[in-house]
Amino acid sequence: MAKGDLLIIGGNEDKSDKKMILSRFAALCKNRPGPIGILTTASGFPEEVGSEYHELFHTLHGTKPLLFHLDSREKAEDPELPEQLSTLSGLFMTGGDQLRLTSILGGTTFYKHLFQEWKDNLTIGGTSAGAAVMSRLMIISSKLFEKEDVSVLEMGSGFGFLEDVIIDQHFSQRDRFSRLMRAIALNPQIIGIGIDENTAIWVHNDGVQFEVIGEYNVSIFDGKTSTYVDVAENKGNMTISDIRFHTLGAGAVFNLHKRELIIS
Amino acid sequence: MAKGDLLIIGGNEDKSDKKMILSRFAALCKNRPGPIGILTTASGFPEEVGSEYHELFHTLHGTKPLLFHLDSREKAEDPELPEQLSTLSGLFMTGGDQLRLTSILGGTTFYKHLFQEWKDNLTIGGTSAGAAVMSRLMIISSKLFEKEDVSVLEMGSGFGFLEDVIIDQHFSQRDRFSRLMRAIALNPQIIGIGIDENTAIWVHNDGVQFEVIGEYNVSIFDGKTSTYVDVAENKGNMTISDIRFHTLGAGAVFNLHKRELIIS
Repeated sequence: MAKGDLLIIGGNEDKSDKKMILSRFAALCKNRPGPIGILTTASGFPEEVGSEYHELFHTLHGTKPLLFHLDSREKAEDPELPEQLSTLSGLFMTGGDQLRLTSILGGTTFYKHLFQEWKDNLTIGGTSAGAAVMSRLMIISSKLFEKEDVSVLEMGSGFGFLEDVIIDQHFSQRDRFSRLMRAIALNPQIIGIGIDENTAIWVHNDGVQFEVIGEYNVSIFDGKTSTYVDVAENKGNMTISDIRFHTLGAGAVFNLHKRELIIS
Repeated sequence: MAKGDLLIIGGNEDKSDKKMILSRFAALCKNRPGPIGILTTASGFPEEVGSEYHELFHTLHGTKPLLFHLDSREKAEDPELPEQLSTLSGLFMTGGDQLRLTSILGGTTFYKHLFQEWKDNLTIGGTSAGAAVMSRLMIISSKLFEKEDVSVLEMGSGFGFLEDVIIDQHFSQRDRFSRLMRAIALNPQIIGIGIDENTAIWVHNDGVQFEVIGEYNVSIFDGKTSTYVDVAENKGNMTISDIRFHTLGAGAVFNLHKRELIIS
């Protein structure tokens, strides 16, 4: 069976007007029967955030969503979770802090069964922190120590729905260009994907390709072609030569295996 | 005779602490005898800006600078200007509005003789607007019309000290990534050079290469390799594939003809 599609959203998706991205998620969840699950683990305000998405997906998908307020590793071991996950058509991960997602859920019953269901065609969506967590390697945060003139990029393990990729979100809006470049400099074999707000990539075809959806752009940094990387001193400035770069607007389709734009 | 060196500064260069970039400019001006000229045409506050640089270069270069407060085309036709320009070792262009530089000085006696002196080894420096104006093609401004979802990039002719290059300044600090990408999409034959604040490129060796100086990074977008460009609808979002990208830290040397990093 094919793996589930992924809808990876750069944060701040429209929830009150055309709801283009959230509607797409609801439509993608028609691949399997059942309601949409909403995972609020990333959020510090799970009740508020959960009820907002609950209302949205209730309307957009026509079924009553299931809320997963898992704020401890203990709750993520609940023996009823596997059965609940198996009834879902899709799971949506809210924004917040991606480190909460991995530290609370990593290796738990919930995570293991989520991964298994995804391999059996469960659609997974995530916004902001819920987007960052999609890849095997994940950006946790970047910190600039002004006095020491040192910037440190914290990375960790994400949920691993995508290999050889690192996701950054709120990309243009929070000026994360140099942070993603740094991640690529440190891991030149991977592709950096910077997703703007109210913009998403729909990963389909068993993870081989994605299409850009939404208002702004997706920026791709392919480090595989780089000929020179100097980040040894871990300072704010660095030198990296020959990165392959693409900027993609709505409708553009990219092949993640060949690492190239598909021109239709 | 060799063309003069250029020191192209991304704006907001340190004027009170180590003054690394302005010291370098003063040192480069030792190529020829004579004082440094300060051109305030870009600025709306020529007296204040001029006297600040006057004091700085007086100290750093050891000669008394000449101020050029040329705020009209008439003043730029002053027949004494050619003689004054010939006595200079360098000319420094302040920040402000690059359109003032080109609209007031373009085609005047001042500009023609400045260009000639530069071809005879006059060093030229510029910060912010004074950096933008260095190339043949220059970014004037970019405007986003939110309601129409249209972004317009105004471009015009600069002073032409560099061909096949477009300069953007305050690059990381003002998040000008997409603006420079757009300029490249519209002119894929040129190289886009985004210079951060308190960072500069020192163009030497007859314009063949430059070295990065200062605190942050220089970003290079080479559109020549691009395989697909879609900016037809002039919207905020666009698709451009296969841009060659480099990010350069202090000390990195780049060959503008070969369009590649020189690895020492």
